[in-house]
Amino acid sequence: MTGKVSLIGAGPGDPELLTRKAERLLQEATCVVYDRLVSDEIVAMANPKAKMIFVGKMPQCHPVTQDRINEILVEEAQAGQRVARLKGGDPLIFGRGSEEAAVLRAQGIPVEYVPGITAAQGASSISGVPLTHRGLATGVQYVTGHRQADKKLDLDWKRLANPDTTLVIYMGVANIGQIAVGLMTEGLPGTTPVMAISRATTSQERRMTSTLAKVAQDAREAELKAPTLFIIGQVVSLYEAQGLPLEDDRREAHA
Amino acid sequence: MTGKVSLIGAGPGDPELLTRKAERLLQEATCVVYDRLVSDEIVAMANPKAKMIFVGKMPQCHPVTQDRINEILVEEAQAGQRVARLKGGDPLIFGRGSEEAAVLRAQGIPVEYVPGITAAQGASSISGVPLTHRGLATGVQYVTGHRQADKKLDLDWKRLANPDTTLVIYMGVANIGQIAVGLMTEGLPGTTPVMAISRATTSQERRMTSTLAKVAQDAREAELKAPTLFIIGQVVSLYEAQGLPLEDDRREAHA
Repeated sequence: MTGKVSLIGAGPGDPELLTRKAERLLQEATCVVYDRLVSDEIVAMANPKAKMIFVGKMPQCHPVTQDRINEILVEEAQAGQRVARLKGGDPLIFGRGSEEAAVLRAQGIPVEYVPGITAAQGASSISGVPLTHRGLATGVQYVTGHRQADKKLDLDWKRLANPDTTLVIYMGVANIGQIAVGLMTEGLPGTTPVMAISRATTSQERRMTSTLAKVAQDAREAELKAPTLFIIGQVVSLYEAQGLPLEDDRREAHA
Repeated sequence: MTGKVSLIGAGPGDPELLTRKAERLLQEATCVVYDRLVSDEIVAMANPKAKMIFVGKMPQCHPVTQDRINEILVEEAQAGQRVARLKGGDPLIFGRGSEEAAVLRAQGIPVEYVPGITAAQGASSISGVPLTHRGLATGVQYVTGHRQADKKLDLDWKRLANPDTTLVIYMGVANIGQIAVGLMTEGLPGTTPVMAISRATTSQERRMTSTLAKVAQDAREAELKAPTLFIIGQVVSLYEAQGLPLEDDRREAHA
């Protein structure tokens, strides 16, 4: 009797930002396979009888390869488990959920996706910096600032350097200098406001505002570490224009 | 005694895709102000004693102006209500949440944001079409295909016509012909796969796959209506490559 796998977005960190569906599936699961970016409080919400398997990938250190994760998911589902595969953010936005799903489907294992609040939305809601705003940004773009170990960061700076949209860089802390130079070379002003947020919506949250010209140096001086998100664009100007702090604006750590 | 306003994303439609925080705030609210795109099942989750105020904006028909919505939020908060302001999707992605927040803050009213699963994520998870996928899309971009009544659609086609990223068009059903031509003029092949999804994750969901060259005609023949989302890019090729249908793939309505 084959089980099934639910590829579940665990959101940015705050356990209250999990969806109701994710919560239900965690409680129904007989096996939970979870990443490093899933917070302890969320892992603790799982069915206490479930088999718990940690497959977290640390930067510069891969204790469990993607191939091995795929094998674990197949083995557990073939053993009849109802598997909750928890990923930080959304499984279909930089989450490799569709790669895992393809492997499972090739084995005839039923798969479903449960979307999650992606890091950009967590950062936006907690800081009050909108991702779109009339007159400031007609759209928003998410890109990753990270490539596999030996690969070059091959971003299309010309297309990214759009003053009318908000640009959100995931996994960009190591390459933010190169990213900023690329965007300025293609015409984004050095004065473009930037917000960096690490671990938004968790108790380890850190925020920093800067500009495109200064962000690499500021991030280095602030010793920002992964996971850090960069929000680049005029919407960030609303952060300091907010006047009153947001209710939840307690954990601010301006560098 | 001033109340407060929570600007809450209600997600794409399925009540299980609400966050746990949204659910809690709906139950704690003494007043709920909600849009047309918020599903009946979600509205029904509100505290039964709460004052319910519908401010839905229909296309071509604006029963409640944005100015009036702002006034209602200010009045209710100043009367001491704990207001849950429910919006379809995410309040900070095409949701005008930051405009409402600015008005409230100017009156000294505490505001918080609660993110929601945006329509693109709902469409992606229910159809199995990822928004990013290694080798097919290194990022994703959300833009709106709609402008206020008399304004021209002034999108930057050159920057949007990026074969390496997924492009999601919100509110684009009326302008999809112009959008497709703009993207093809700037070099996106007419064979680029496109998926249109209306009301993803609800019982009225409809899906259609097409190509950039044919999508305008196909959408017209299928009589797609707002709200419809278009996902444009190579990731859509995975839809037909899925082999096995997703578990939830029941409501498919190929036109």
